[in-house]
Amino acid sequence: MRQSNLFTKTRKEAPADEVAKNAQLLIRAGYIYKNMAGAYTFLPLGLRVIEKINAIIREEMNAIGGQEMVMPSLQDSALWEASDRWSDENVDVWFKSELKAGGVVGFGWTHEEVITDLMRQFISSYKDLPKFPYQIQKKFRNEMRAKSGIMRTREFDMKDLYSFSATQEQHDAFYNACSEAYMKIFNRLGIGSQTYKTFASGGAFSKFSHEFQTLAEAGEDVVYVNEAKGVAVNEEVVKEADLSELGVSESELTKRKSIEVGNIFSLGTKFSEALDLHFTDEDGIEKPVIMGSYGIGPARSMGTIVDLLSDEKGIVWPESVAPFKVHLVGLNLEDAATRDWVDGIYASLQENGIDVLYDDREARAGEKFADSDLIGIPYRVVASKKAKEEGTFEVVKRANGEVRRLTEQELYGDFDSNEDT
Amino acid sequence: MRQSNLFTKTRKEAPADEVAKNAQLLIRAGYIYKNMAGAYTFLPLGLRVIEKINAIIREEMNAIGGQEMVMPSLQDSALWEASDRWSDENVDVWFKSELKAGGVVGFGWTHEEVITDLMRQFISSYKDLPKFPYQIQKKFRNEMRAKSGIMRTREFDMKDLYSFSATQEQHDAFYNACSEAYMKIFNRLGIGSQTYKTFASGGAFSKFSHEFQTLAEAGEDVVYVNEAKGVAVNEEVVKEADLSELGVSESELTKRKSIEVGNIFSLGTKFSEALDLHFTDEDGIEKPVIMGSYGIGPARSMGTIVDLLSDEKGIVWPESVAPFKVHLVGLNLEDAATRDWVDGIYASLQENGIDVLYDDREARAGEKFADSDLIGIPYRVVASKKAKEEGTFEVVKRANGEVRRLTEQELYGDFDSNEDT
Repeated sequence: MRQSNLFTKTRKEAPADEVAKNAQLLIRAGYIYKNMAGAYTFLPLGLRVIEKINAIIREEMNAIGGQEMVMPSLQDSALWEASDRWSDENVDVWFKSELKAGGVVGFGWTHEEVITDLMRQFISSYKDLPKFPYQIQKKFRNEMRAKSGIMRTREFDMKDLYSFSATQEQHDAFYNACSEAYMKIFNRLGIGSQTYKTFASGGAFSKFSHEFQTLAEAGEDVVYVNEAKGVAVNEEVVKEADLSELGVSESELTKRKSIEVGNIFSLGTKFSEALDLHFTDEDGIEKPVIMGSYGIGPARSMGTIVDLLSDEKGIVWPESVAPFKVHLVGLNLEDAATRDWVDGIYASLQENGIDVLYDDREARAGEKFADSDLIGIPYRVVASKKAKEEGTFEVVKRANGEVRRLTEQELYGDFDSNEDT
Repeated sequence: MRQSNLFTKTRKEAPADEVAKNAQLLIRAGYIYKNMAGAYTFLPLGLRVIEKINAIIREEMNAIGGQEMVMPSLQDSALWEASDRWSDENVDVWFKSELKAGGVVGFGWTHEEVITDLMRQFISSYKDLPKFPYQIQKKFRNEMRAKSGIMRTREFDMKDLYSFSATQEQHDAFYNACSEAYMKIFNRLGIGSQTYKTFASGGAFSKFSHEFQTLAEAGEDVVYVNEAKGVAVNEEVVKEADLSELGVSESELTKRKSIEVGNIFSLGTKFSEALDLHFTDEDGIEKPVIMGSYGIGPARSMGTIVDLLSDEKGIVWPESVAPFKVHLVGLNLEDAATRDWVDGIYASLQENGIDVLYDDREARAGEKFADSDLIGIPYRVVASKKAKEEGTFEVVKRANGEVRRLTEQELYGDFDSNEDT
């Protein structure tokens, strides 16, 4: 893509009302635009990152049997009254609106009630189980205060998967498989080493539930971690649970700020009983379906990556989610011969299957390099009059500043095969 | 995909309250689920069709310079007051809701105001023009009556592109390019031959605007068509315009029912003046940006395809948007040797890059064939004990019932190269 066509423009300053580092950098680098408190536009660069995150999530969810669908935002109150989650006293994040045809509709902030009702049509026998539908779909939450940039907004896409199982064993097997899939996702997103499967209170249906918490100074949450043992627990568990069964004592745990990047819940039969989702087992006995829910917010993942991996110059994307692999920075483009030559390099990179952003603007080298660092694409390739004359390109790796000089052929070969991030 | 894993189940009867043919068939065949009036779930099969439609739209929009992004649903009243489209008197489809933090938010039913405001940050000079951002994003419309199945719902994804031009010539060039791109899209969707670029009243900024109307008995709209001359006009134009400049007379036109599958508008400077989107031209003079908007609803396209191309047995998808290319119907699967062999055929089809749905259920042949006709995948391949013994497969083309007998090798070769729809 040519940067001159991309309507994204980098900015020296983020908006004054934006205090979160992730949103400041993403706004300055032209990934997002703040429309109002808690509502952002994903500009072309930002949408490319989100789509790469979504693709990773989809791959891992499909690999464990997930089936993608998409449910509506508009909510019929009857379903939520059945589970006692319609009233504003019980749920404080509803957006509701009058329906012109009469009555009130809600805007979905989660989808347990909807999917449970829907599955009544598709589940009647143990032969229909287990099932693992999921969606990447927009949630609305009427937060008193939107905060932490794109981490806590009033509308956001969420990957929410729901599991439907006949037996506790079937449920546990999927719960564990999803837990492993989540760690694969966070590893692929480049935040795996700082992310802990964290023990949280379990509620009525299991001893513990689990949050996936990423250690980060910008986090709103707090976890207690033993990095050596790879164990993390949340505040409630520290206070209430017997830590010895987790193999740690309180004195071994360090309090850290963190970001909740995912969560998995055993729901038991709470929703299947409330909404009458039953099946007939092998012995002909009718039972409520055992459920679980499993969430990841792609934008929150994106914000976490920015918070964790950026440096004083700007964003540092891991290759897996970078909007492009290579940032081709053209210099001396006011010289027609140089421009023609750099245009040719751009075309050849694309022909070699390399995902490339081409800075074809007529601007000073210093400005281009600063923008390139801010945007944070993994490899910067400088194509200038000098490069043309010498036949070699300066290649800078954004993550560590490593500089190499490559010939044109090495350039195509290197980026074609090199997958180190 | 294995049909036994797909939680979709075909139904003999559509819900009693669903009168539209498109929704009846799509519900019965397991593509969609009706959550409430005007709000549907796209089940795994349905989502596959929508994603194929979206991919075609994206390709054609990107080919004319479109840049994809995504804007929020939540709307700040201030922007809409500037264009006088906030009040319920002026706009009767708003969903609005109280914000817990104070104030009222709207749920976007279109995005002219949002994109105009946003582009103020990215457009200041003629050098920044033209620009063609678009999104495929959810709209909410508080319709008094949802109707026509998935054609007119209260929430739906829309592809909305907005053009920003410095001069009328620049605007006209894109308007025409988009008009051609739309016809390419409808051709690729299999409804091109029944779709007319229809002259409609132009409003303040152009003599005519254009709707894309597909002739269909199920349509809510009415157009006046001369099929031989390839000309269509809407009711207003028949009454008010001089038809001779379109090369037809009223007596040559036939009144037909139709579905509006797309529209393109010249907006002039209405929104850029209301929301202060100006640029400096080559002579240093400040001018308002000339805008246009261009919409297509993917779900409405899907419904139109179903309405037009289905027969008495069910849906008939064109290959371009079919959820799968091949429906492998396994018979005699209660016989272990046959099941192993059919499983192997399924694996080989996939290895040969063929998109295949495998009916691996243990059910009667008659039920499987009826379901297969209802679901409407382009090619049905029957793999039975008899096929195993004879070494040939019955292949039925859904569109015309044409039957062929192919060997295993022909099967892989045929579906690998054959692109006739």
